[in-house]
Amino acid sequence: MNVATRINSALDVRSQFPAIENWHYLDSAATAQKPQVVIDAITTAYARDYATVHRGVYERSAAMTASYEAARAAASGLIGGQPNEVVFTRGATEAINLVARSLPKEGRNRVLLSQLEHHSNIVPWQLAGYEVDAVPLTVDGRINLDAAEAMISEEHRVVAFAHVSNVLGSILDTKRAAEIAHSKGALLLLDGCQAVPRIPVDVASIGCDFYAYSGHKLYGPTGIGCLWGRYDLLNALPPWQGGGSMIDRVTFAKTTYLDAPMRFEAGTPHIVGAVGLNAAVNWVEGLTLDAVHAHECALVAECRAALSGVGGVTLYGPEDSAGIVSFNVDGVHPHDTATILDDVGVAVRAGHHCAQPLMDVLGVPATARASFAAHSDSSDIEALVRGIEQVKRIFG
Amino acid sequence: MNVATRINSALDVRSQFPAIENWHYLDSAATAQKPQVVIDAITTAYARDYATVHRGVYERSAAMTASYEAARAAASGLIGGQPNEVVFTRGATEAINLVARSLPKEGRNRVLLSQLEHHSNIVPWQLAGYEVDAVPLTVDGRINLDAAEAMISEEHRVVAFAHVSNVLGSILDTKRAAEIAHSKGALLLLDGCQAVPRIPVDVASIGCDFYAYSGHKLYGPTGIGCLWGRYDLLNALPPWQGGGSMIDRVTFAKTTYLDAPMRFEAGTPHIVGAVGLNAAVNWVEGLTLDAVHAHECALVAECRAALSGVGGVTLYGPEDSAGIVSFNVDGVHPHDTATILDDVGVAVRAGHHCAQPLMDVLGVPATARASFAAHSDSSDIEALVRGIEQVKRIFG
Repeated sequence: MNVATRINSALDVRSQFPAIENWHYLDSAATAQKPQVVIDAITTAYARDYATVHRGVYERSAAMTASYEAARAAASGLIGGQPNEVVFTRGATEAINLVARSLPKEGRNRVLLSQLEHHSNIVPWQLAGYEVDAVPLTVDGRINLDAAEAMISEEHRVVAFAHVSNVLGSILDTKRAAEIAHSKGALLLLDGCQAVPRIPVDVASIGCDFYAYSGHKLYGPTGIGCLWGRYDLLNALPPWQGGGSMIDRVTFAKTTYLDAPMRFEAGTPHIVGAVGLNAAVNWVEGLTLDAVHAHECALVAECRAALSGVGGVTLYGPEDSAGIVSFNVDGVHPHDTATILDDVGVAVRAGHHCAQPLMDVLGVPATARASFAAHSDSSDIEALVRGIEQVKRIFG
Repeated sequence: MNVATRINSALDVRSQFPAIENWHYLDSAATAQKPQVVIDAITTAYARDYATVHRGVYERSAAMTASYEAARAAASGLIGGQPNEVVFTRGATEAINLVARSLPKEGRNRVLLSQLEHHSNIVPWQLAGYEVDAVPLTVDGRINLDAAEAMISEEHRVVAFAHVSNVLGSILDTKRAAEIAHSKGALLLLDGCQAVPRIPVDVASIGCDFYAYSGHKLYGPTGIGCLWGRYDLLNALPPWQGGGSMIDRVTFAKTTYLDAPMRFEAGTPHIVGAVGLNAAVNWVEGLTLDAVHAHECALVAECRAALSGVGGVTLYGPEDSAGIVSFNVDGVHPHDTATILDDVGVAVRAGHHCAQPLMDVLGVPATARASFAAHSDSSDIEALVRGIEQVKRIFG
């Protein structure tokens, strides 16, 4: 390893994460650990401020409603959206399901996906009855937009791509993707689960139509995610789930509905999830996503160089991956790699990463994956490399 | 008020609820406040134990997976179900939507509801394309099961009733409801949102087919609820939302799915919601629901007697309501009542309580509602009565 590139936690936030003391957590792409400020926001919401939203006449309920709506504005503002353009969902998966199930097909029954999509951006479209076309990848693991341009047709209702691949870390040229989708009248939905915690996102400058991301990968609570949609599109979707808080007037004969985003939030929402997400958004905006991205790029460069230096390790994905490094130790199943790494206090994920079609393309059943976060530093990479050397000794 | 019936917090748990210090919280039917042990479980899950579930090879992820599945077993066991019979949803609303949208109609396109249902047990059936028949109520505000018996037909796929009314507190004769549904081959779904925190529930002895309840009304976190289903029925439902963790094998040509309950939990679940719900289940089981029910019955009796004693107050619902007292001060809009009560530190809900059809039946646009919990005591009722007297002075 080149000592000159050692990342001495330029962001200096590691001490804010109570759950990773003495632990090299390299599974942030699965779910992010939480800074103390987010945990405190959740605790305070339950222990001091708790009340329902949108319904209570009393003052504390009005205050909690204001907090809930402030969270919506923050979650939308983080990605360049307007306050009323975000629907809170259970997670990014529900966000994509909502669009897939609700969007009128208007005579177009195909979607254009890519070979690197997460199952959450494949299966919803299949369940909604779309025919799926999958754009191939470039040699270094990006969605091949030249191929996409050749494949797009007026039969495609939606183009749905990962903004950042959860396996390869490759970053999409989103503006070109939008141009390709719109050239044939299709809509562009971006799966931003891995992008929003890692790079600056601006839906307005991208020109996309829908954008989905999850809270728990953005240092926030579990059980909440965001569907951003251009307001005219969002408000044109019919209701999906029915219940309280999304209706205008209910009779047994006929029910009428509220406008978006409320129309899509049936039932008591994940109130404290929204409060915690707001704290997470504020926290990451305080760091700036430019700084997080620079930090993770440096870590990726260091990690790829270090793993290359070990020898006998195959790396996947492009050099400029956004915080994610997939690899295999030659001749060793990644589950065995991950188990040995766990023994030395390093947590990586091993498996298909909910991207079985991509594994088929890579020609492997699984990979190991190290993924970084704002709290990651060179000590994590050093521990990873020591662990890989141990793997090689055991299986060598 | 009859001092002899004063409830000196027989359960003695008020001090365990940090958020209601110096506050008379009588809106537990909207959402329950949280005992410290639940808040602590949530904090510990984020600050010490946090990891993803079902995917990680490393030990902490395996431990969190065990916690998540233990929560499922506890949530099912609380209502007499088996460990694999509960699907974690965003809340009870999603649970009912899941059944309404997924259950094959098998040639039956009607559902039998009642006039007291919450919107969450009306609108999902309408959105799923069912014709709705609504069973009328008895004079004292119960679902009229004689009428239900006369109305049920072989066109009804589902009978869906509230186990306890969220407005009137009336308790359903669930065994008879099951017999009525099954007499014509219909399934019985019970909306248990208000029942599970208030009375003992045993799905096996009821003989129902689906049972829905929410975590946040059971002293647990927001953003999580439970759909219990008889396993054979649950496992016969097709997938609803697609994504990670619910699939067996994904290709672009064809995808196969896991068995229930995993088939219905697409994406990273509300991990910490499950952990917090488990703590809430343990807490309420420690009190016993028999004791909670007895406590709330005594409070209802005291409250109804006290409000009757004030004069000029109309009470709704039966004498033996399960912890819920709806009322109106004659000639005063319930929003004004609730606003004045808020000024004196008493939180009640005013509105249609997501039950507009019931308001139509009662012939009022809205009611005020006081609802009790394990931490409620006579001081809450005394404050409520003082507040109502203030309302009468202002509007008298």
